[in-house]
Parts: sequence; structure tokens; C-alpha cells
Amino acid sequence: MPPDASRRSAHRRGFLRLAGGAAGAIGIAKAAWAADGGETLTVPEWSRAPGAPVASPPYGQPSAFERLGRRPRSVPAFPGAASTGTPLQHLHGIITPNGLHFERHHAGVPAIDPDRHRLAIHGLVERPLVLTMDDLVRMPAVSRIHFLECSGNTPWLGAKPTWTLQESHGLLSCAEWTGVELATLLDEVGVKPGAAWILAEGADAAGMTRSIPLDLARDGAILAYAQNGERLRPEQGYPLRLFLPGVEGNLSIKWLRRLKVGDQPFQTREETAKYTDLMPDGSARQFTFLMEAKSVITTPSGGERLGEPGFREIRGLAWTGRGRITGVEVSTDGGARWKAATLEGPVLPRCLTRFRLPWRWAGGPAQLLSRATDETGYVQPARATLVSLRGTQSFYHNNATFGWAVAANGGVSHAG
Amino acid sequence: MPPDASRRSAHRRGFLRLAGGAAGAIGIAKAAWAADGGETLTVPEWSRAPGAPVASPPYGQPSAFERLGRRPRSVPAFPGAASTGTPLQHLHGIITPNGLHFERHHAGVPAIDPDRHRLAIHGLVERPLVLTMDDLVRMPAVSRIHFLECSGNTPWLGAKPTWTLQESHGLLSCAEWTGVELATLLDEVGVKPGAAWILAEGADAAGMTRSIPLDLARDGAILAYAQNGERLRPEQGYPLRLFLPGVEGNLSIKWLRRLKVGDQPFQTREETAKYTDLMPDGSARQFTFLMEAKSVITTPSGGERLGEPGFREIRGLAWTGRGRITGVEVSTDGGARWKAATLEGPVLPRCLTRFRLPWRWAGGPAQLLSRATDETGYVQPARATLVSLRGTQSFYHNNATFGWAVAANGGVSHAG
Repeated sequence: MPPDASRRSAHRRGFLRLAGGAAGAIGIAKAAWAADGGETLTVPEWSRAPGAPVASPPYGQPSAFERLGRRPRSVPAFPGAASTGTPLQHLHGIITPNGLHFERHHAGVPAIDPDRHRLAIHGLVERPLVLTMDDLVRMPAVSRIHFLECSGNTPWLGAKPTWTLQESHGLLSCAEWTGVELATLLDEVGVKPGAAWILAEGADAAGMTRSIPLDLARDGAILAYAQNGERLRPEQGYPLRLFLPGVEGNLSIKWLRRLKVGDQPFQTREETAKYTDLMPDGSARQFTFLMEAKSVITTPSGGERLGEPGFREIRGLAWTGRGRITGVEVSTDGGARWKAATLEGPVLPRCLTRFRLPWRWAGGPAQLLSRATDETGYVQPARATLVSLRGTQSFYHNNATFGWAVAANGGVSHAG
Repeated sequence: MPPDASRRSAHRRGFLRLAGGAAGAIGIAKAAWAADGGETLTVPEWSRAPGAPVASPPYGQPSAFERLGRRPRSVPAFPGAASTGTPLQHLHGIITPNGLHFERHHAGVPAIDPDRHRLAIHGLVERPLVLTMDDLVRMPAVSRIHFLECSGNTPWLGAKPTWTLQESHGLLSCAEWTGVELATLLDEVGVKPGAAWILAEGADAAGMTRSIPLDLARDGAILAYAQNGERLRPEQGYPLRLFLPGVEGNLSIKWLRRLKVGDQPFQTREETAKYTDLMPDGSARQFTFLMEAKSVITTPSGGERLGEPGFREIRGLAWTGRGRITGVEVSTDGGARWKAATLEGPVLPRCLTRFRLPWRWAGGPAQLLSRATDETGYVQPARATLVSLRGTQSFYHNNATFGWAVAANGGVSHAG
């Protein structure tokens, strides 16, 4: 039996065990065929007349019954400087649809004409070049499914019981990114001896710049022009962004216009005044790129209200910048006991992994937690552990476990 | 080295070999840094002032510079009965964004209120049930990335040199589908002895119905409510569709309202008057579900015009209803010689697989072909082979190799 099938069977066995071992014991559907009051057998109005014509509009939109959107996380200093979270509590699987990918801008969303856009690469290289979008698209391409997370996702301080998952973890999304490996372009221009860092610069009005170590630039970084099959959305860097898997989102410079190869970091504003981690001893950690193993329960989650006791599946997401997730444990009693969740395949490196655990809510209070382990053996820390090491002023890189409290009335809020 | 990295290295070695083995030999970018006329160093207008505010609209849209859409394949008998293809020639990777997934309707797109929608399951079962959407979403879920192809994709007759890929292969898309395994629901209701087929019925005004063998229903079929993370789009069956991986798309009944378990096929219109394959001897094959191994080159493809000789990557898609693609060969001389293309991972079962081959177009005529092999050893047939076995009246299930002719002037059209 292939691994996927084996995992699925184990999951279904677990579900049937929980359901009492017998078919029909899950008891979710309340209406039997004979007792449904005829509603199903009545033909509803949408079955009586043809519906809307095909391909109208030619680019499809969500149902009018679904009203999901990305909400600003805070009031911006000006309209173009803010972040908006993905409503992860309403999503399924691992792919984030492009219309709901999180946003973080420093000077709004520029409207760039792709025919006029250029990427320059210069500095410590043998053959400095200026490339058009057409040049880039003709080069050898790769496509990879990776998560992207803002290092400021999940604030260290000020947690509120009323937080939804969009508010606590929404600066996290996952997509299939297509483009040219940065390593391919570096081979093409020829990196000179002594080169160690690359400056990446955006074409937005903020002129976003970050320094990237050469080793990291060769570790799967992509000059990305497509996301989930289609060209990038404007808010994701159209027509070109850098995409660095597994590290803080701020490095994945959008609207990429320039790469400069140098022998040391460029010490830009975004790596001195911002994106450094203040430690308890007053020192600041700089260039803390890696997004370490993290997980969160997406269902049930903050703001939800469980309608009635009985079976429901606990679902969540796990991810790590170090490679693959190898396991997720779930607790329903605040961490006293843990159970191994089922991981949905394919489990890909530096990608969201969906986990699931069958659960029968008895109707009383419960305290839900999840804890991820990655292929290096690293285990997601409890908040107390992380705070004991880094204090509470780090601002970035909070990957601690995150709890949801279920009240006796079914209300779900953040606690623990 | 992990398999992915190994594959990538092999691909890059192949690319460098083609480029003459030396860095810089690819020669795609025409402008060197010093010779770019200052264009890159000029600050364009979009870098001078802040761009559009964040999250406006809260559900993102493609760039105004991109104007992709699904086009009707033929003039419909009435506005709700037609198909529209995915513009695969403009897409990348394997995921089809939800707004561009192909459509095929028989009575338009119904606007279904999810709170009022019901799924009934009855017939040869122990406990007939009526389920709400909430019932279904609470049940154990799976998420899988699968292709969906209409069995009428790629007409047998009437091929035109002017065809674009959207016209020849556009009734093919790929997404991550989330929902309840049909096997889970069958276990829940308890299938009675003698049960062998299931009738699936849609809630559209056409009352679309198909018969599905019980074995096929237990082979990974999903009662799907989400696609690429979000709830289904209306044109994909909102709020609920059946999804059967690897078989003709018509079986994946949209707007699913009823499942009836029986002991024989139900002989509905869609499996008697339609979706049968007429053989040369006048007999008709019925219940030909499987979509066999197939591939097509997406870049370059029909309607494209290669701008200038030099390096470009040949790209395409391969898929098989039997499991995984194991190899794709590409010919640039009409099938005289074949080269193994690189497969982009992850290579998933019953899913699109992206393939790539470095190519240096010399500027003369070329005849491009691709040929897929799957894990059962099945090799995609040449058109002549397929026609010799099935004639030309089958209408459905044309999985033959498909050629693009590149003219000396760079124009690309269908031939071969």
C-alpha cells in the first residue's frame, strides 16, 4: 500500500474507532431519508429553470453567498502602509487562492507595466545585465509550492481572547510559485570572487531593500512571475518578485527591479531599524531569517461557536522553514495529554501541511493546542519556553504554540 | 541529495550543456548593465508615488495588464449549455486558479443557497440520510490535488492549424479539492449486499445524472466543498460536487443533491445518448470512464510567435488517470528523435505533471511533439495508432500525441 493510502486508512480507522467502531455511529446527519419532511424531495427553485450563462464573467468569482475578504490588521499610518491577513479559519487544504493571499505593503500597490519593467543585476558579477520580463520567461523555470509568512505574524504581546485566526496568524499563505531560480541567473552573470551578499530592491515607492546571503540566494530562491498558475497579482509583486522559501516574508522583495551582488550586507533600513529581534539583555539579533516550526488549529478557532456536542474534526496547519513537517500533536486538555494528528499528503518541504484529528466534543470546556515537529527534530516551543529565551520585546518570529479555549456553551476564544 | 534536488541539478546541467557549458552563454538578455541606455536607472512613475491602498478590493483580482479569460468553445444551443476552456497556454506550474478553471454546463449555473442545500443518500443502504452542508463539513475531510478533464477535450475530427491550446486542450484543469471521501459516507450509511452502482444527481435544471460503479466510488472519490482552499465557485458546483479523480469529468456531478445506491447502472441519458464511444464496427463502448495517459506542449503552442532564434524552454503538461506520470519524451523533429524531459516535482497521482526541456531554436522550421508514459507502462499513442484502433467517430477520449509546427518565421500552428 502506498504511504498516502496507508495514512488515509489509519485516519479512517481512527475515525471509526471514535465513532464507536460501527458504521452509522458518527451521527452527524440528523435527518433520515424518511423523516426529512419532504424538503429534499421538493425541487428547489434553482432546479426548475436554467441558471446563469457560461463564462459570465470569463474570469470567475466566488459565490455571492461567500463573503470572505482580507481585513486590515491595523489602522495604517497612510493608506498604502498596512497588512491584511488571510482568513485561514475559513480555508481548506494547503493552497491559498490568489484573491485571499495576505498582503503587506510599505507604499501601496504600484501599477507596473510589464513591458516596461526591467530587472538589473550588477555589482560583483562578470556580466551585469538588464532583463525584460520576456527574457526571464524564456529562461529555465521551476514551480514549487511554498508557504510565505511575515515574521511579524502572531504578535508577541497584546493577545486578545477575541482574536480570530485571521488576526493571530493571517499573515501566512501558501501558493505554487513559478519563475527562474535565482541560482540560474547568478550562474548566467557569473559571480565574482569575494561575493557574499545580494541586495534586492523593489520598484514600489518605498524602494524596499533587503540584503540576502549568497548561500540563501542559492537555496531555492525564485525570481517569480506566476502564482497558482497565473501571473502574479499586483499586490504580490506583479510582474516580478523575489521568492525565498522558508524565511521571513519581508525578504521576498515584491516588484523586484534590481539585484546588486556585494561582499557584505548592505545594512538597509529594513534590517536595522526594522526586522531585528530585541533580546532581554538589550542586544538585538540581526538577519534572523529562518521561520522555525509552527502550527495552529484552524478548526475550531476564535470566534467560532460549536453548535452542538458530538463529532467534529480538529483541523490545522503546520509549517517549517527547515524542510518538512514530520509530526503534529494535538491536545484537547491544555497540554496534559497529546495525540498524534494525521498529516495530509503530500508533505512538501517549506510548505504548509494540513493535519487532522477526529474529536468528539462532549459539550464541556476544552483547551485546544497543537505542537509541530520538523525533520530536524525541532519541536515547536510552548509560549513560556520561548519567552524565557527571548523575552517579550522580540516582535518578530513568534512561533510558540497557540491555544483555543472552548467554553461549555461552545464559544471559542484564544487562551493559552 | 533528495530526489527533487537531484532532478533539479540534472535539469540545470542540461541547460548549461545546451548553453555551451559556460556561464553567460544562454544569451537571452540583450542589454548589459552599461548598455541599457539608462532605462533601468531611470525611476519609473510607479516608483515615485505610493500605489493603491491595501486590500482594495478585499478579494484580490488579476492585474489590469492581464486579460485572460475562459472563452466559449462553441456557440451554445442556449445560453446555459456550453463549455469554456482554460487558457493553458498562458498558465504556469500545475495549479489552475479558480477563476480560470474550465466550465461545462448543461443548464447554466444555478445560484444555490448553501443553508438550504441538502444531500440525500438512499437506495440499497441501511440508514438513508439527508445531510446539510454543516453536517458534511464536520465529517472527516481529505484534500487532494487532481486534474479534471472533460472526455470531450481535444476533438477527434476537424482539427484546425489555427487552434490555440485553449481550443485543443482547454477542457482540462487541476486544483486541490477538499471534502469528505465518498467511502466515508458509504461506511456511515452502510451499503447493503448486492449494491454495485451509485446514481449521482445534480441540482441544476438539467438534473444531470450518471451511474458510478461502487468500486470506483470507493477509489478516492470526494464529496467536495472546497477548491484551492476556498469554497467551490458556483460554476464548479457550489456548494457541493462529486469529484472522481482520474475519470471523465462528466462523472464529477456538480451541485450534487442525491446519491442512490443500486444493483445495476441506471442507464441515464448521459450514458446512453451521450458519453459512449462509437467504434469502427458500429458498436458503442459504454462506461469508458478512465482518462488515459496524455500530454501536450504548452510553450510554444498554437498562435504564439517566437520572436527571435535562441534559447527558450519547451514546457508542457502530462497526466494519467492510472496514477503517476513516470516520463515524458519530447521531439522537435516530428517524432524522428526523442529526448527525455525533466518532470517537475511533486509528481502526484492523477494530477497534472509539468515537464520541461531546454531548447535552442535555430530559426528554421521545427515540429514539436510530446509523449507521456505512466506508472503502468502505458505510453501515450500517436494519432494514427489511436485512429487505427478506434476510428474517428469516438468523439470522446482522444489522448493521442498532439503536434505544433514552428515555421521559419516563428509562427506556431497545429500540425501532426
